[in-house]
Amino acid sequence: YRGPGRDFVIFEILVKGNDLGGGQTMELSHFEESGRAVMVDVTEKKDTERQAEATGKILVNRQVFDAIKAGTVGKGDVLAVAQTAGIMGAKRTFELIPMCHILPITGCRIHFDMDEEECAVRCTCTVKVTGKTGVEMEALTGVSTALLTIYDMCKALDKSMEITEVYLVHKTGGKSGEIPNEKHRAAQQAEQTGKRLKTWD
Amino acid sequence: YRGPGRDFVIFEILVKGNDLGGGQTMELSHFEESGRAVMVDVTEKKDTERQAEATGKILVNRQVFDAIKAGTVGKGDVLAVAQTAGIMGAKRTFELIPMCHILPITGCRIHFDMDEEECAVRCTCTVKVTGKTGVEMEALTGVSTALLTIYDMCKALDKSMEITEVYLVHKTGGKSGEIPNEKHRAAQQAEQTGKRLKTWD
Amino acid sequence: YRGPGRDFVIFEILVKGNDLGGGQTMELSHFEESGRAVMVDVTEKKDTERQAEATGKILVNRQVFDAIKAGTVGKGDVLAVAQTAGIMGAKRTFELIPMCHILPITGCRIHFDMDEEECAVRCTCTVKVTGKTGVEMEALTGVSTALLTIYDMCKALDKSMEITEVYLVHKTGGKSGEIPNEKHRAAQQAEQTGKRLKTWD
Amino acid sequence: YRGPGRDFVIFEILVKGNDLGGGQTMELSHFEESGRAVMVDVTEKKDTERQAEATGKILVNRQVFDAIKAGTVGKGDVLAVAQTAGIMGAKRTFELIPMCHILPITGCRIHFDMDEEECAVRCTCTVKVTGKTGVEMEALTGVSTALLTIYDMCKALDKSMEITEVYLVHKTGGKSGEIPNEKHRAAQQAEQTGKRLKTWD
Amino acid sequence: YRGPGRDFVIFEILVKGNDLGGGQTMELSHFEESGRAVMVDVTEKKDTERQAEATGKILVNRQVFDAIKAGTVGKGDVLAVAQTAGIMGAKRTFELIPMCHILPITGCRIHFDMDEEECAVRCTCTVKVTGKTGVEMEALTGVSTALLTIYDMCKALDKSMEITEVYLVHKTGGKSGEIPNEKHRAAQQAEQTGKRLKTWD
Amino acid sequence: YRGPGRDFVIFEILVKGNDLGGGQTMELSHFEESGRAVMVDVTEKKDTERQAEATGKILVNRQVFDAIKAGTVGKGDVLAVAQTAGIMGAKRTFELIPMCHILPITGCRIHFDMDEEECAVRCTCTVKVTGKTGVEMEALTGVSTALLTIYDMCKALDKSMEITEVYLVHKTGGKSGEIPNEKHRAAQQAEQTGKRLKTWD
Repeated sequence: YRGPGRDFVIFEILVKGNDLGGGQTMELSHFEESGRAVMVDVTEKKDTERQAEATGKILVNRQVFDAIKAGTVGKGDVLAVAQTAGIMGAKRTFELIPMCHILPITGCRIHFDMDEEECAVRCTCTVKVTGKTGVEMEALTGVSTALLTIYDMCKALDKSMEITEVYLVHKTGGKSGEIPNEKHRAAQQAEQTGKRLKTWD
Repeated sequence: YRGPGRDFVIFEILVKGNDLGGGQTMELSHFEESGRAVMVDVTEKKDTERQAEATGKILVNRQVFDAIKAGTVGKGDVLAVAQTAGIMGAKRTFELIPMCHILPITGCRIHFDMDEEECAVRCTCTVKVTGKTGVEMEALTGVSTALLTIYDMCKALDKSMEITEVYLVHKTGGKSGEIPNEKHRAAQQAEQTGKRLKTWD
Repeated sequence: YRGPGRDFVIFEILVKGNDLGGGQTMELSHFEESGRAVMVDVTEKKDTERQAEATGKILVNRQVFDAIKAGTVGKGDVLAVAQTAGIMGAKRTFELIPMCHILPITGCRIHFDMDEEECAVRCTCTVKVTGKTGVEMEALTGVSTALLTIYDMCKALDKSMEITEVYLVHKTGGKSGEIPNEKHRAAQQAEQTGKRLKTWD
Repeated sequence: YRGPGRDFVIFEILVKGNDLGGGQTMELSHFEESGRAVMVDVTEKKDTERQAEATGKILVNRQVFDAIKAGTVGKGDVLAVAQTAGIMGAKRTFELIPMCHILPITGCRIHFDMDEEECAVRCTCTVKVTGKTGVEMEALTGVSTALLTIYDMCKALDKSMEITEVYLVHKTGGKSGEIPNEKHRAAQQAEQTGKRLKTWD
Repeated sequence: YRGPGRDFVIFEILVKGNDLGGGQTMELSHFEESGRAVMVDVTEKKDTERQAEATGKILVNRQVFDAIKAGTVGKGDVLAVAQTAGIMGAKRTFELIPMCHILPITGCRIHFDMDEEECAVRCTCTVKVTGKTGVEMEALTGVSTALLTIYDMCKALDKSMEITEVYLVHKTGGKSGEIPNEKHRAAQQAEQTGKRLKTWD
Repeated sequence: YRGPGRDFVIFEILVKGNDLGGGQTMELSHFEESGRAVMVDVTEKKDTERQAEATGKILVNRQVFDAIKAGTVGKGDVLAVAQTAGIMGAKRTFELIPMCHILPITGCRIHFDMDEEECAVRCTCTVKVTGKTGVEMEALTGVSTALLTIYDMCKALDKSMEITEVYLVHKTGGKSGEIPNEKHRAAQQAEQTGKRLKTWD
């Protein structure tokens, strides 16, 4: 039995954990006051155009890298299968992520960049919707599914592949407007001066 | 129209791409000779006990880290939701990854470690089956789904979280037997001498 | 080609079966005039805010009841898994119930009450949508999935559990407005005077 | 790293929570020693023929009862849709119930009895498998889905329907052998002497 | 980074492949300029009422034809199961067809005609939505799923059944307005003068 | 109320409908004696190696035919998406076709032939399993899903495409052994003497 006193204490911890300062309020949106998970109520939110872009990459050995590249030239097209899987995965986000809303997304696009130096394939997924909540989870799920598909199709050639640096690049729409990802901006600047990605799409 | 000659050339490239040396033969298993994707035929393979363990982590800010920890103590339990999502995700691997077989997995276990120093939550997923093919994709999908769920539940507090270092730790069973991941072994040794993970599960 | 005469006869039988009297008109909504099942056409309906709340309970033995309660204190949290499953189940109503529409629900909340005297766990599910049709099936499916999950996780300790009294508590929105459930109102009044439910959530 | 000492303490709490007494040992199978949920490892279990039968009923008003009966005579067949939905629901148990295994069930049968006196439709679902774990959850999910489908198709005529008395009738196979449900046996005896169910199937 | 020059070249090839002539412009909508598949962006499109009707048939032997007809009279109702499956299939189009949008369809209706002379069952599926894109794929998937279900349920009696003539009858709504199918119009005229279909629904 | 007498009559009709003669017995496998649908009990059947091959084609206009061919040469690869969709569709047969068993298929392969003269794309799907029942439905669902995907991706260029001649080519395994399709054999012979299919895969 959990008395109201204890709930109060935990609520305190959460407020302290948020530690916002300056009177700014933010909420750990997927929890009710009593702390249980909930699918957040967005009924009152306006339908606005929203967009999100996520990225991630898979590190592979040279053998796999070359096989994927060969595929893009002619047949044996790992990235074509991964692209299809990524778009289908984005549509199924609400089935996989428990507290995600069902969002009738209005567009989804996945593309790949081959990074010769790092021996990596970078995946980017852009998702759009006219809806009451953002589509960052759809974009991230699209990226993850596409990269897992590359893993699956190449795993006979490399047991040490690694999926890494999966994050949100930016999102627009909703009350918070444009949200760029600072880390990604820094990485892009580094790229422009130094190494250069070979785009594949 | 693609003539047999051109197919032959591409087949050559793939063999060169594999570049195994020493007469050892390996195949890019998800492709037929002509290069199209295929769900590999495992009919002739023996049913053996197989196991795979995958890992991955999500980097979060201090605020999110503390909120997750508070949840593990009392209520508001992000990791309980993520654990459930991860197990359910592992079961649905065959629906997400196009060339994966339907595997009636016989066990699945997900646990989490909180890394105070790095401000990260590490997820590990172990999957078992008695079947004709391995369960590494199930373990990797379990990890990815659990980490995406953490992302979703904490995204109001941190727009820069990152899912990273998702890889196979080891797999057993099948003709290749025990396959450890060299990188993971090195990381574990580093950990034992230096920083220490706080296990949460 | 089906002539209007034949359809008319069958329509007559249905009206007789409905036996409404007093000029009141009601329709067996999931059937066409000729009697086959159909997914009802709601194209012309307005998008309005709608809400539904359903409830149900599972009767368990004392051993299970205590184990579930122990879970709420520390770990081993049956209800956390059941809550997650219930929300995910509500989202998949359209896949399970043949004539249900796909509804992009805008909120879902599940909570539990532990009834010490009756040795029962009561589940309540509230669902919201802005749409053309109600969400009572989503709420009922959420309740059923959550209770089945409790059953599954405790079945090693009790072979005689029973899921019972699953019904709609009330719904709002749409042309019929607020619809309370008379039985539930009576039960609540009885509870307020007599035994008292201990809320867990 | 989790030491055995900490796990041991939590295990103690669970045993106290279970309060078995008399030296009887039982396990809360879906939890690990440390208390987190897990999909139980059945890898070592033998494949045996298993069967489970579950039942449940929906209480409806006279108008709905008659409409359903009329459907069985000609067209407008609520029970045909419910039967199909129940079988499809049983197959999807592993997607709905988080800790359930994927079981390639080898047979599923749903039938209905109309109880004139009680104004109820009783549903029975029998499921078979040759596998490592039982199919009671499949049978219970089949019953729940069929009854929810009846609810959905008749809800325009009755806002107070109730799904009730959903339980396992018996299961066979596995190490526990035949497990009858005592309550069901008593109910059946009462029926044989008193009121009589009209079988519909 | 992909420069406009490279994209331009590939665009040229596509235009040549399309070979439109006469200044007519049409787009292969599911491909980007660079040729990869994409889920078309419909964010800017208006929500309008849209409808589509598709048809298809299954050729069966006389034995199967008679068994299906017997089922429509009394029990053993193949078409009732197929109708339910078709409606459920239409709702799941977005999961099956990679580049299809998630459309919350507002109505779906399936009916069957028995063609004595040809020994065939014709299925028609009508789908409605208020949305940004059409529902022809939903109608076609509904027809295909219904016909596959008939095949499944009768395959013990006939190994040579054939699903054939699956096409769009007409669609309305969206910018292209009413689009009738010329072939279907011709077929209907032939029917009206010659043989006559027996409608079953 | 349907008395046993009437059931008897219908049973008679079914037996007459089967009209096998010569003492040969065959059953309409998806129905019980009383006529309701059922998922056939295959528990007692032996696990044997089984294989099925199905085929079907889509008739398109010249513009679409050329666009698809262009895609096979460079990018914009309709058939790569359709192939992936077909394999994924085959794995989901048990979710779409109500009375189909869950079969952990051990291999699936889809390929396409371009027929210049007829302006058609023919799809062939081969599925394997070690199981208690055949995989013809999986092969047919794989073909249908692949052809629907081609339809979806080309529908902007042709409103009159038609999916046609979807049938089982042959199946092996199980008690009935090799079952060739007579019509297909005839068609193949005609092809060998007359027009020739250009294989694409």
